[in-house]
Amino acid sequence: MTKLFLFIQKTLLPILILIFFSQNIYASNGKATWIWYPGDYDIWLGNEMSNRRTERGAFFPPFWKMDSHYVLVEFSKKIKLTAPEEISIFVEGQYNVKLNGKLLFGTPEKLTLPVGEHDLNIKVYNQKNVPAIFVSGKTIFSDSSWLVTFEDKEWIDESGKASDLSATTYLSAASWDFDTPEARPSEFKLAQTPMEAVSSVKKNNGILVDFGKETFGFVKFHKLKGKGEINIFYGESEEEALSTEYCETLDKYSVNNSIAEDYTLPNSKAYRYIYIESDAEVKFDKVSMLYEYLPLDYRGGFRCNDNEINQIWDVSAYTMHLTSREFFIDGIKRDRWVWSGDAIQSYLMNYYLFFDSHSVKRTINLLRGKDPVTSHVNTIMDYTFYWFLSIYDYYLFTGDIHYIKEIYPKMVSLMDFVLNRTNSNGMVEGLSGDWVFVDWADGFLDKQGELSFEQILFCKSLQTMVICADIAGNSDEKTKYEKLANSLLSKLESQFWNAEKQAFVHNRKNGEMSESITRYSNMFAILFDYVDENKKQAIKNSVLLNDNILKITTPYMRFYELEALCALGEFASVTKEIKEYWGGMLKLGATSFWEKYNPDDKGTDHLKMYGRPFGKSLCHAWGASPIYLLGKYYLGIKPVKPGYEEFSVSPTLGGLEWMDGSVPTPAGDISLYMNKKEIKIKAHNGSGWITFESKKKPQSANGNIESLGNNKYRMLIIGDGTEKVIKYQGK
Amino acid sequence: MTKLFLFIQKTLLPILILIFFSQNIYASNGKATWIWYPGDYDIWLGNEMSNRRTERGAFFPPFWKMDSHYVLVEFSKKIKLTAPEEISIFVEGQYNVKLNGKLLFGTPEKLTLPVGEHDLNIKVYNQKNVPAIFVSGKTIFSDSSWLVTFEDKEWIDESGKASDLSATTYLSAASWDFDTPEARPSEFKLAQTPMEAVSSVKKNNGILVDFGKETFGFVKFHKLKGKGEINIFYGESEEEALSTEYCETLDKYSVNNSIAEDYTLPNSKAYRYIYIESDAEVKFDKVSMLYEYLPLDYRGGFRCNDNEINQIWDVSAYTMHLTSREFFIDGIKRDRWVWSGDAIQSYLMNYYLFFDSHSVKRTINLLRGKDPVTSHVNTIMDYTFYWFLSIYDYYLFTGDIHYIKEIYPKMVSLMDFVLNRTNSNGMVEGLSGDWVFVDWADGFLDKQGELSFEQILFCKSLQTMVICADIAGNSDEKTKYEKLANSLLSKLESQFWNAEKQAFVHNRKNGEMSESITRYSNMFAILFDYVDENKKQAIKNSVLLNDNILKITTPYMRFYELEALCALGEFASVTKEIKEYWGGMLKLGATSFWEKYNPDDKGTDHLKMYGRPFGKSLCHAWGASPIYLLGKYYLGIKPVKPGYEEFSVSPTLGGLEWMDGSVPTPAGDISLYMNKKEIKIKAHNGSGWITFESKKKPQSANGNIESLGNNKYRMLIIGDGTEKVIKYQGK
Repeated sequence: MTKLFLFIQKTLLPILILIFFSQNIYASNGKATWIWYPGDYDIWLGNEMSNRRTERGAFFPPFWKMDSHYVLVEFSKKIKLTAPEEISIFVEGQYNVKLNGKLLFGTPEKLTLPVGEHDLNIKVYNQKNVPAIFVSGKTIFSDSSWLVTFEDKEWIDESGKASDLSATTYLSAASWDFDTPEARPSEFKLAQTPMEAVSSVKKNNGILVDFGKETFGFVKFHKLKGKGEINIFYGESEEEALSTEYCETLDKYSVNNSIAEDYTLPNSKAYRYIYIESDAEVKFDKVSMLYEYLPLDYRGGFRCNDNEINQIWDVSAYTMHLTSREFFIDGIKRDRWVWSGDAIQSYLMNYYLFFDSHSVKRTINLLRGKDPVTSHVNTIMDYTFYWFLSIYDYYLFTGDIHYIKEIYPKMVSLMDFVLNRTNSNGMVEGLSGDWVFVDWADGFLDKQGELSFEQILFCKSLQTMVICADIAGNSDEKTKYEKLANSLLSKLESQFWNAEKQAFVHNRKNGEMSESITRYSNMFAILFDYVDENKKQAIKNSVLLNDNILKITTPYMRFYELEALCALGEFASVTKEIKEYWGGMLKLGATSFWEKYNPDDKGTDHLKMYGRPFGKSLCHAWGASPIYLLGKYYLGIKPVKPGYEEFSVSPTLGGLEWMDGSVPTPAGDISLYMNKKEIKIKAHNGSGWITFESKKKPQSANGNIESLGNNKYRMLIIGDGTEKVIKYQGK
Repeated sequence: MTKLFLFIQKTLLPILILIFFSQNIYASNGKATWIWYPGDYDIWLGNEMSNRRTERGAFFPPFWKMDSHYVLVEFSKKIKLTAPEEISIFVEGQYNVKLNGKLLFGTPEKLTLPVGEHDLNIKVYNQKNVPAIFVSGKTIFSDSSWLVTFEDKEWIDESGKASDLSATTYLSAASWDFDTPEARPSEFKLAQTPMEAVSSVKKNNGILVDFGKETFGFVKFHKLKGKGEINIFYGESEEEALSTEYCETLDKYSVNNSIAEDYTLPNSKAYRYIYIESDAEVKFDKVSMLYEYLPLDYRGGFRCNDNEINQIWDVSAYTMHLTSREFFIDGIKRDRWVWSGDAIQSYLMNYYLFFDSHSVKRTINLLRGKDPVTSHVNTIMDYTFYWFLSIYDYYLFTGDIHYIKEIYPKMVSLMDFVLNRTNSNGMVEGLSGDWVFVDWADGFLDKQGELSFEQILFCKSLQTMVICADIAGNSDEKTKYEKLANSLLSKLESQFWNAEKQAFVHNRKNGEMSESITRYSNMFAILFDYVDENKKQAIKNSVLLNDNILKITTPYMRFYELEALCALGEFASVTKEIKEYWGGMLKLGATSFWEKYNPDDKGTDHLKMYGRPFGKSLCHAWGASPIYLLGKYYLGIKPVKPGYEEFSVSPTLGGLEWMDGSVPTPAGDISLYMNKKEIKIKAHNGSGWITFESKKKPQSANGNIESLGNNKYRMLIIGDGTEKVIKYQGK
C-alpha cells in the first residue's frame, strides 16, 4: 500500500489509496489507447450483445439481472514534464478537465502543459455508453498507468479547507485494443468479410440457399427490386430452414425498390441454410452474406496420421472461432449469451488455440457483473463455482497477477453470497431461486439435497479463494477460506463415499446418502486430485468404464469425462471415444460441433431439444473440446508455474503413429513433433521438463536425459527457441 | 405473502413471490400512465439534473457515486376479459411481448386479447433511458397494479420442463404523472414561461440586465445579429454579475447571424442579474428569459397582521419553489444537487406548502441510489441519518404505507453499512471516508471521536428502523433494531450529559467527555424528546438562550434551533428571531433566502463563502424554514396519526394580533383563523383535537370544549368541511 497526496486546488486534499500499484506513478506504456473503469466496458458490450438474440422474430433478452457501467468516472494521472507538451483529449461522454486542481473552461480538446509536475484529472459522465478517454501527447498517453475511480470521498468545508479524512479507492484503468482516437469503444464492431453461397435452388415456394457450412453473418440481397415482403427462414440444417413453422430464427423485410439495390439485413444470424419466400413482385439476382467474426490468430495447431482426428481438430477450431465473438458465447444460433459453465471450457480451449486473454477477461467480467450479487452466475449454482475455477485457470495459463488483484474483491462478494446460502453442514444445496444444473440428462438427475458434485466444485472454489486471497495479500481472508476449504474437503469422503460401490454417491438428503451413482462428482474428484491413487483406479472401473452408470450425452460433460480418463492414462479409450463421438457428428455432416449428440438418435431426432424440433444448437462452444484434450494430454503441454514460467510436456501418442502440433503461451508457442522413435520440441520462453516413456534408453544431443525408472525418462527443456531432438523407442 | 402460478408457455413455471400486494391481482386504477421499476426513473433523472451543474464554464458533476437504472425490466399483469379488447403498447426501449407465455413476433404496437384470463408480459431493454411502458385499452391500463422485476429466476430443462424452484421478486410498478403516450418519461422537461427584465443599463464594457428578483431559466437574446463572441456573466447579486473574474457561472456563445434571429441559451442558470459583454459587431435588441419551474400548487398559506412576517413567508415560499425542481435541491446557483440534510428540510416545508409527495419520493430514492452502499449518503454521516428520519416524516405526513414497504429493503442495506462502521461502544465516529458535517461553523467544531449530535441522529434512525420493520412485517428485524436503539438511547445521558454545565457535551474522545458544549445535540435531544422536562428547561437556559454558546449562522441549523424553542413554547423569542434573522436578509434586499446569513457581516462579505467572493448561494432551500415554523407551530397544525387520519391543532399567536392560514393534508386543507378572541377552523378529513389557552372559559356552537386545567382547553374537530368557531380570550 502506497499513500500519495494529491493537492487539488486549495479545496481538496484526497488521500489516494493506491491498491496494488507499486510501479513509478509517472510511468507510461508509451502508446495511447482508450481507457475505462475495469469491467465496465465488458458489462456494456455484453448488454449490447446479449440483447441481440431473437427467437422467431421476437427480441429475446437474458432472464438474469443485467448490470450497467459506472456513469460517472474520474481518470487521473501524475505527470512530470521536462519540456512543455501539447496533448489531445478525446472523450466518450460529457467531461471536464482539471489541471493541478483547477477546472479548465469548457471541454478542452487540446491542452498544453508546462514543464514540471502535474496532476491531470478528467471526469466523464456517460449514461448511454461507457465513460472512456483517449489522451495523446509526446510523452503523455492514456493507458493502464492512469487511475480511475467512480466516487471521490473528498469534500470542502466552509472556508475552502480540505478534509483530511477522505479515502478514495483507485484502480488502474482498463483497455482493450482501441488504439486510435477514431476507434471509439462505443462503436466497436466485429470484422466482416463477404462470402458466397455454394448453392441456391428452388424449393417449395421459395429458394433454398446453402453456404456450405455453418456460418454467422448478415444476409445480403443483390439487386433487390420490386414491392412486397421477403421472409427469411434460417436453418443450421436444411430441415430447419425449410420449416417455416418451427425454424428458430427468421426475419421479415418489406421491399419497396423501384430501382434495384443491394440490401444487407441489419442483424447477423447463425445458419448454414436460408430459405427465402417472397412476394411475386419482389426480385433479386442472388443472395450472399457478410461473414462476421472476431479476428483471432490460430496459434495452436494439431496434425497427426489420422485424418479423421485432423478433421475433428479443424471443425473444433472452427466451432471455437464461431463462438468466440464479443465474448465466448455458448452457441451461435440460439442463446448467443455468455454462460459460465460453457465459458470455462471455451477459456481452456482458447489457451490451446488463440490464447486471447482479453476475451477471457471480458467474459469473466461480464459473467460477474456488479455488486450486489442477487443470484448465482446465470442463476446456476454450478456456474458460480466454474466462475471461481476459471480465474485460477486464467492465472495459471497467463500469469496475470494484476487481473487477479483487480477481480479479487468481486470474488469475495460472490463467495459471501455462496457462504450465506450454506446449510448447517457447511454444504450447498439448491435453495429457492438456485438452478442446480449439473448437465442435460433428461430428468434422470436428482437435484435435491447436498449433491456431491456441487460440494466438490464448491471445495475447489474455496481453494481458489485461498490462492487468490494470498495473491491479493489478504492473509486473514486466506486463513478463513483455508479453514472452510479444509473442513469441506474432510467431509467429502466421509459423507459421500460408498465403499461397497467404490464411488461417490450422487447426493445426500436429510443426512442420508442416496444409492445413486453418477459420473459427475467421480470424475471431478479425479481431476481435482481429491482421492488417492487407489480410489482413482476404483472409480475408473466402478464408474467411468462402467456402462451401467448413466451415460453422458453432452460434449459439455464429456469434456471432463475424457479429461479424467486422460489423467488416468486411458488414452486408448479416449482416442476411440473422440473418433466415435466427434467422428459420429462428422459422419452426420456436421460442419461445427453440437450442443448435444446421442449416437442412438435417428434422423431429425438429432435436431430436437427443449421440446422443439430444431431447438438444438449445431454450433456449440462446448462441442470443441478435442482442441483442449489433444493439446493438453496428447501433445501434453501445460503450465506448471503461472504464465508458463515453468511448463511440463508429457506427450502421448495414444495410439497415433505421429503427431505434430503447437501450444501457445504468453511468450511464444511451444511446438512438438512426436512419432514412435523421435520427439522434437521447441519452446521460446521459460523452462520445463519433458517426460515420456521409452522401451530403450533414449538419447539426445540437446540435454541430459534422466531415468525415472519403469521406462520413464525426463529431460529439462530450456525455452531458448532452439529445437531439441530426442531419440527413443515408443509403443 | 401470496403465491401465484404463472404458466408461461410450456417452458416456464415461475413462482411469483408477491411482496405486499394483497389486492385483487386483476384490479387496475382505470387510467393508463407510464410505469417503470421503482426508484429507477428518479436515479436516471437525478443523473440528468446533477450533471447540469457548471462552474465558470466547466462541467461540474457530483463527486459521489452515481447509480443507474436496471437496463432490463419485465412488466407483467394478469388480465381477465369478458369481451375481446385491443390494447396499444408504447415502450421506451427495445421490447418483446409475451401473451400467456408465448412470445409474439416482432414488437407489436397493437394487440387484441380474446375473452378469458391472460398473462401479459412486456420485457424492455434500455441502456440510455429508463425502461418504461404505457399500455392502454378499454379496461387494461399500465399502472401501479402491474408488477416489475429486474431478474427472472426461471429456467427450463432439456425437455422444456420447468423448474419448480424459481423465486422471482416482484415489486409493483412506479409512475409519476406521464399520463399520455406522448408524455415520454425520457423527454421530461420542467415548465417554461417568458419573463422580461426590469432594467437593462450600460455598465463597464457591456450591459447589465436586472430581472428584479432571483430567478432561474434560459437567457434569450432578441434579434441577435452579427459575428463575434458574447460573454454572459451571471450574478445573484449585481456585484457577482459584474465580476467577470469571479462570478460563479458564465457562458460563452459564438454568433454568426447575417440575419437577426432570436437565440435562447441551451442551459438554464440561476441569477437575478446578467452582465453581457460582446464583440462590437454583435448586436441584439434586448434580453429576456424563459423562467423554468416545476408547476406546483401553493396549498399552504399564511397571513398575519405583521407585514414583515407576511413578506418572509412569501419569500420563503418563492425560495422553496425555486429549489423544488426535478428534485428538492440545495441551491439554484451552485450545486443544483440533492443533499440529504437540505432535502429533509425541504420535505418538511413541502408538507406545509405544496404537499407534493412525488417530489419527496423522487428525492429520497435518488439520495439512496442503488446497492451496494459504498459511502454515506452524499458521503456525509449525518446526511445518512437524516435520510432515515425523512422516511418516517414522509409516512407520518402522507400515510403512504406502500412506499415504506417498497423502500424498506434499502433502509436495511444502508443501516447495515452504518452498523458495520460502529465502534466497540456501539457508536458512530468519523472513519476514513466519512464526512462528519454537522453545520458550517468556521472550523469551530471538533469532528473527532463520538459526537453526541451524531449519536442522537443515529438513535433516532434506529427507532425509525423499528417502526418501518414493523410496517414491513419483519418482527425479527424489528426486535434487532429495538435492542440497538434502546442500548444507544440508554448511553446518551450517561456518556454525554455534563451535570455541572447542564448540557450534553459536544463529543467524547478515547472514552473521555470533552468540555465543549454546542447547540446541536442539545436541540435535537429536545426535539426527539430524549430528555425529561427538567432537562429541557435546563438546556433552554444553559444552551439555547445562552449567548456564550457558539452561535448558529446557517438557516439550516436555525431551523432546528427555532423548532426546539417552539417546542419549549418560547414563541416570543422565535417571533423576534424570525423578524431579525429573515427580516435582516430582506433589509439587505434578499428576494430569496440565503445559504448562510451572519448579521455581523458587512457589505459584500455577505456574498462570500468557501473562500470565493461569490461562493455563497443566495437562494438556498434551507433558508425557507419560516414556512414550516409558521405552519407547524403558529397555526400549530400537524399529523398525529399517519396521513392526518388524526391531527392536532395547537395554534399560538406568538405575539401576533391575528393570523390566517392553511395547511395541506392528503385529503384537503386544514384552514385556521385566529385572533385574540376567536378561532375559526375547517378540516375536510380525519379528526383531531384543537388545544389552546384562554383566560376565560371559551365557547363554541360547534362542539364540546373540555378544560384541561391551567387555562388550557380542547375541542374535537371533525373533518367534515364545515367551519368551527371558538370564542375565547387570548393573551
